Amino acid sequence: MIYLDGNSLGPLPSAVKKRMARVVCDEWGAMLIRGWNQAGWMEQPRRVGERVGRLIGAEPGSVVMGDTLSIKVYQALVSALEMNPGRRVILSDTGNFPSDLYIADGLTRTLGDGYELRTVDPEQVMDAIDETVAVILITEVDYRTGRRHDMKALTQKAHAVGALAIWDLAHSAGALPVDVAAEGADLAVGCTYKYLNAGPGGPAFIYVAPRHQERARPALSGWMGHEAPFAFDLDYRPGHGIERMRVGTPLILQLAALDAALDVWEGVDMWDVRTSSLELGDLFIAGVEARCPELKLATPRAHEERGSQVSFEHPEGYAIMQALIAEGVIGDFRAPVTLRFGFTPLYIRADDVNRAVDILARIIGERRWDRPEFKRRARVT
Amino acid sequence: MIYLDGNSLGPLPSAVKKRMARVVCDEWGAMLIRGWNQAGWMEQPRRVGERVGRLIGAEPGSVVMGDTLSIKVYQALVSALEMNPGRRVILSDTGNFPSDLYIADGLTRTLGDGYELRTVDPEQVMDAIDETVAVILITEVDYRTGRRHDMKALTQKAHAVGALAIWDLAHSAGALPVDVAAEGADLAVGCTYKYLNAGPGGPAFIYVAPRHQERARPALSGWMGHEAPFAFDLDYRPGHGIERMRVGTPLILQLAALDAALDVWEGVDMWDVRTSSLELGDLFIAGVEARCPELKLATPRAHEERGSQVSFEHPEGYAIMQALIAEGVIGDFRAPVTLRFGFTPLYIRADDVNRAVDILARIIGERRWDRPEFKRRARVT
Repeated sequence: MIYLDGNSLGPLPSAVKKRMARVVCDEWGAMLIRGWNQAGWMEQPRRVGERVGRLIGAEPGSVVMGDTLSIKVYQALVSALEMNPGRRVILSDTGNFPSDLYIADGLTRTLGDGYELRTVDPEQVMDAIDETVAVILITEVDYRTGRRHDMKALTQKAHAVGALAIWDLAHSAGALPVDVAAEGADLAVGCTYKYLNAGPGGPAFIYVAPRHQERARPALSGWMGHEAPFAFDLDYRPGHGIERMRVGTPLILQLAALDAALDVWEGVDMWDVRTSSLELGDLFIAGVEARCPELKLATPRAHEERGSQVSFEHPEGYAIMQALIAEGVIGDFRAPVTLRFGFTPLYIRADDVNRAVDILARIIGERRWDRPEFKRRARVT
Repeated sequence: MIYLDGNSLGPLPSAVKKRMARVVCDEWGAMLIRGWNQAGWMEQPRRVGERVGRLIGAEPGSVVMGDTLSIKVYQALVSALEMNPGRRVILSDTGNFPSDLYIADGLTRTLGDGYELRTVDPEQVMDAIDETVAVILITEVDYRTGRRHDMKALTQKAHAVGALAIWDLAHSAGALPVDVAAEGADLAVGCTYKYLNAGPGGPAFIYVAPRHQERARPALSGWMGHEAPFAFDLDYRPGHGIERMRVGTPLILQLAALDAALDVWEGVDMWDVRTSSLELGDLFIAGVEARCPELKLATPRAHEERGSQVSFEHPEGYAIMQALIAEGVIGDFRAPVTLRFGFTPLYIRADDVNRAVDILARIIGERRWDRPEFKRRARVT
């Protein structure tokens, strides 16, 4: 198998298997309720958050794990809107992951009162940031095309007009160097089951810049974000700093998998990962363009304008991807016409890329995708 | 060890260990992204929801799993308030679990516009349900005292005055017979890491009565609740029925643990569980009252007025619990003075209860709790 889908679900790191047995048997099984103290479960969201924070350039104490990315988008949006009370517009773009847009739309309905989600084309974001905008909600790397936004420039523009910036790092964390502190992000969110290999349902993260932490309101004010959860006070008092972004009981089994998965990043320089990822992507682009002219590149060629995936378009993209998967090359398909391939140097090498190109060229050249079994749509992709 | 804390975190069911190895190695490890289809991950929240639904008397297709209880409380509240647009009051009681109150309070702040959380003493709930109330948010069994509300009567009163009823079943599901359909609950929520033994961070559930499903708005409108998540439309369209209450990517590892844990309930009659649980509770009450008169019963004596836990109060409750734990009797403590003991007939028998009483009596009689090591507070309990 050649796995070019780490941008959707990362593979199982070898350390996870043993760690899962430990958390299930030695912690839950043997410690039972005492695991909250003895195994450090209660601190896991912060402790693991620190590890993720180092991969995205966050200041110490400014990242916490929990819930799913959509939930964290909601918390980030409410926090930002309340910190910018004179304005009513959330600005995003049509290249954003739909769930971010759905969550923002749902929030404007809950808020009523003139709140609005304004969505423009990705190329128009810079020009659309004006004095009416309360907050921009932008995913750095486009899930479909791999197109990368300029985090620094958009954040600066937002700040220049008095808006805040929320960055969704779903396709950035573990894929390329990110420096939320240096680039001035106000809040950031992301998931861990892609390039961070936390497994299906891996917990999300939220970053709040230190300058905002003591005035950010978590909106989903659950007990774990309370200043003293075990005082069981009737009134909510937000916890200090990033702690307040915790909501409910932490997802200990998922957190254990993530924690073990993060071990592979110790000593890894994200710039090395980036260099290798771009080389692999270039190799793939050159090979496919030389041998499969029917496929149209959907990803920007310039290194600074793309993430860690390469996408091609073809009207029969779905069937082509099914034929590829049948031959052991795992990428994925995004409707209506996009074939996505993720390049993850931790476990993909040039030889894998060359073999994938060979197989793709054969499928295209021999029209192997043109069979009923490849055209039948699965329930999900 | 005598484990009387299944009301806080259930023990590890034997089927879970093997199932966790399977989901990690055979599914995630071997199928990778294909697990969403091949291993049925995408349907897990609904499929497991059906299993939980049968334990709480829910109609088929009306329960879905996901997130944490606090998140589900938020979704239930927004749905209920929007279904009752002329009213602004959420009614709850001081015996409710604080996180429910915090979430409700946070929501009223987000909504502004006169929305209000009104909190009364548990005994006053019935009288406080009036024509100003939009929705009651009540936890059936009090987490501290084990006191049980009358679900049917309070729901009827709510409906009689035009209010809706949300029931939190955190201390009910798997503990006693619940029949949300027969008792007319409009929405219900609960967690699975207590009596359902799903492990730390087990996913929550939400029930929406079939009559409300097509008009309930999930508020946290994530992509998994979309009518067609993989169409990646820019506009949100709520999924059919209970599906819309899904938010983000399902917690596959936690769901696998829960699914395996639910196997022990196949063929179990919840009325048998209830009968045994009350017998065990009665045995404990009689033993403690006879031998430890210093301890004051905090749980109602009448069977119909209590859940599956028994609580006693003592000014030195914290130290007494620590001394008990040191002797292998695991209960827990809730500030300021409550000792909690959960009775779970799936793994606790009369002999365990008698031994626990013996040990408690010795600790009290010999004042064994009066040592510095038992009075030092841990970070969490």
